[in-house]
Amino acid sequence: MIAAADDAINREDFDSLMDFYADDATLVVVPGRAANGKDEIRAAFVALAEHYQHTLYVTQGDMIVIEGGDTALVIAQTNVRANMKTAAPTMETRNATYVFKRDEEDQWRCVVDNSYGAALLNQSNS
Amino acid sequence: MIAAADDAINREDFDSLMDFYADDATLVVVPGRAANGKDEIRAAFVALAEHYQHTLYVTQGDMIVIEGGDTALVIAQTNVRANMKTAAPTMETRNATYVFKRDEEDQWRCVVDNSYGAALLNQSNS
Repeated sequence: MIAAADDAINREDFDSLMDFYADDATLVVVPGRAANGKDEIRAAFVALAEHYQHTLYVTQGDMIVIEGGDTALVIAQTNVRANMKTAAPTMETRNATYVFKRDEEDQWRCVVDNSYGAALLNQSNS
Repeated sequence: MIAAADDAINREDFDSLMDFYADDATLVVVPGRAANGKDEIRAAFVALAEHYQHTLYVTQGDMIVIEGGDTALVIAQTNVRANMKTAAPTMETRNATYVFKRDEEDQWRCVVDNSYGAALLNQSNS
């Protein structure tokens, strides 16, 4: 599911991408700023695509899933690449944390998307 | 709530501690081993208390809460101390990740307790 969501991000297919999120999901856009609900999340992805000059390419490396109480905590190595159409490409690996919830129709949806993981803690100190 | 749960751990009041967990919660006991449901979680805390020779003292430092879809992702610096009644005390700080869920009675309960955070990823590589 996460691989399919990454694929939608990489293709800039934001309609398909929104299917992965619950209506009341939260996305950490950058440390200290969150998008709440599908409208804000979609707008954030549109802005990110522009920020990365439509060269964003995300993949996940190692991943651990811990299920509990109809939710799942996912901890994943997220690779963020963007060549920026320049000689100074972005290449970042983050330890992301995602929360998924199983809805009434037995579909898993992302309710918290925090690609920054525990790095938010360091941010709050600086 | 997390401070109160820590207090229950430090007092070894496992009955009170179980109130913080959902019935179907999952606790990461050590990397690679999880306890599912209150019976297993309680047994794991009893074993941890013995392992630490009843000197375990846990507190949380910086903490970030991200709410989405009736769940909350908590990222916290967890300080694990235990003097072990020896000159070689345990002092560890971990970036923990917890997932809480709001239940039908509007009570928040812990559904995933992973005090190891993203360190589980490194473990899976080793």
